[in-house]
Amino acid sequence: MSLLVVGSVALDSVRTPRGEIREGLGGSATYFSVSAGLFTKVRMVAVVGRDFPRKHVRFLQSRGIDVQGLERASGKTFRWEGEYGKDLNEAKSLKTELNVFQDFRPELPEGYRGSRHVFLANIDPDLQERVLQQVEDPRLVACDTMNYWIASKPESLRRILRKVNVFLLNEGEAKQLAQEDNLLKAARSLLGFGPSIVVIKRGEYGALLFQGNMVCWAPAYPLESIQDPTGAGDSFAGGFMGYLSRRKAIGERELRRALVYGSIMASFCVEGFGLMRLGRVRRGDIAGRYQVFRNLTRF
Amino acid sequence: MSLLVVGSVALDSVRTPRGEIREGLGGSATYFSVSAGLFTKVRMVAVVGRDFPRKHVRFLQSRGIDVQGLERASGKTFRWEGEYGKDLNEAKSLKTELNVFQDFRPELPEGYRGSRHVFLANIDPDLQERVLQQVEDPRLVACDTMNYWIASKPESLRRILRKVNVFLLNEGEAKQLAQEDNLLKAARSLLGFGPSIVVIKRGEYGALLFQGNMVCWAPAYPLESIQDPTGAGDSFAGGFMGYLSRRKAIGERELRRALVYGSIMASFCVEGFGLMRLGRVRRGDIAGRYQVFRNLTRF
Repeated sequence: MSLLVVGSVALDSVRTPRGEIREGLGGSATYFSVSAGLFTKVRMVAVVGRDFPRKHVRFLQSRGIDVQGLERASGKTFRWEGEYGKDLNEAKSLKTELNVFQDFRPELPEGYRGSRHVFLANIDPDLQERVLQQVEDPRLVACDTMNYWIASKPESLRRILRKVNVFLLNEGEAKQLAQEDNLLKAARSLLGFGPSIVVIKRGEYGALLFQGNMVCWAPAYPLESIQDPTGAGDSFAGGFMGYLSRRKAIGERELRRALVYGSIMASFCVEGFGLMRLGRVRRGDIAGRYQVFRNLTRF
Repeated sequence: MSLLVVGSVALDSVRTPRGEIREGLGGSATYFSVSAGLFTKVRMVAVVGRDFPRKHVRFLQSRGIDVQGLERASGKTFRWEGEYGKDLNEAKSLKTELNVFQDFRPELPEGYRGSRHVFLANIDPDLQERVLQQVEDPRLVACDTMNYWIASKPESLRRILRKVNVFLLNEGEAKQLAQEDNLLKAARSLLGFGPSIVVIKRGEYGALLFQGNMVCWAPAYPLESIQDPTGAGDSFAGGFMGYLSRRKAIGERELRRALVYGSIMASFCVEGFGLMRLGRVRRGDIAGRYQVFRNLTRF
């Protein structure tokens, strides 16, 4: 069963206290695909410009990602420039050039419409909806968002939330959207928006999953050196959805494990600039880190 | 085997977004004793003034705490006034009146000197050392501290750290003392100061324990309503040390469980103002919450 993702493919310039990277391959769909690609076949829907380096396309293909849905439009590729301070928890956006993303009207290739698993990465909720409408009979749909859409397109966001099963977002966004400072109450309120599962990402503090009255918690992998947090949330989503897309049934046990796989993939992501580490992960690395997570939390 | 604690007994005035309490029973030794008292017999070493209400002494005794070491000195009881903002993670100290604490020179009652388990709660590290010197043959010694002592008495703090087995402190203090922003590196650096076990408390994000190369992680109990975080760290230490003081051997398994019991006791503490909730906990409540912790983290 294939996993479809729609999101951004970007050229990122990032500075952190550990160094910097100029115009590296990035974007929500990229991080998600590279991460989920270690679990399953990923179909990518996104847009790049004429300036998008061929080597990046070859890299994505080398990770087994289906790029038939990666449109090449006239114009420049989406660019983002950001900076992280000492605490590494929040990026300061220095520049965002939408470029070809501004007029992106995603059309799914015929072969993508039967996808059973869908991830609507962080883009305009109207685009998320447009893509979802083209999927014939999805079994599990998850979406992410960001503060920008919460503030600028609340109605569209509410509409897409009524159509998804899993809502993944970070702690600050959850509180902002629910207008509630207590995280547990915020999560319950978000469950009322439509999704039956809410996953709240807390960066170096791990992640929480809520379904009905069930709550579960995955730690973040303790790392001696965090190079670049860019893409951690999308890598998390990639591990989470990649794992679930290979399961026949999705019960509590699978959700708990998916949360851990999400944490594992996020931990690889932040260990290198851009895709330096995540892009080199092998399946065996994941299994090794899964054991470490077990040891971290068992009592 | 009895557990000895030295620390403060105070009258606390606290304001949080949920309400306030005026001159309630507080202090590090109080929270620790009430929490640890649910696991073992606690011997308290502290000082109060002539104005200290008798009902508070009766309350401590009703929780099974040995108050023979609670000195009543001429002068006023230590008072603290603090306030918490919306995020509840850090108190703003509005007023600190040391009063009788200023001239406190703890002398252990004869019967306390044989204590095998010792907790040096957050007070002047010179007083911590003075108390420890009077204990004949301690088996397990833990200590806490705060930013104030890290900045004002670094030498004394380093001296006491060479004599303890367990060092419990919060995340910000760990980074401050180790002069290191990465928590894992900070913990390793603190292990080099003397203690063989370092426990880093992270409030609503749980706690981490480090021993050699072993790391373990306990979540915080997700609560719908946090009334007052005052005393959470000492309640954590109380659960941690209270549990350990009843174990014959202290291996990895016991340390992992102690971390969870610490988290459980902290969760009770923050559910009410002052001792409103913690002071009413029964042993059965602890067992119930232990099961919830298991469900929270198993995968």
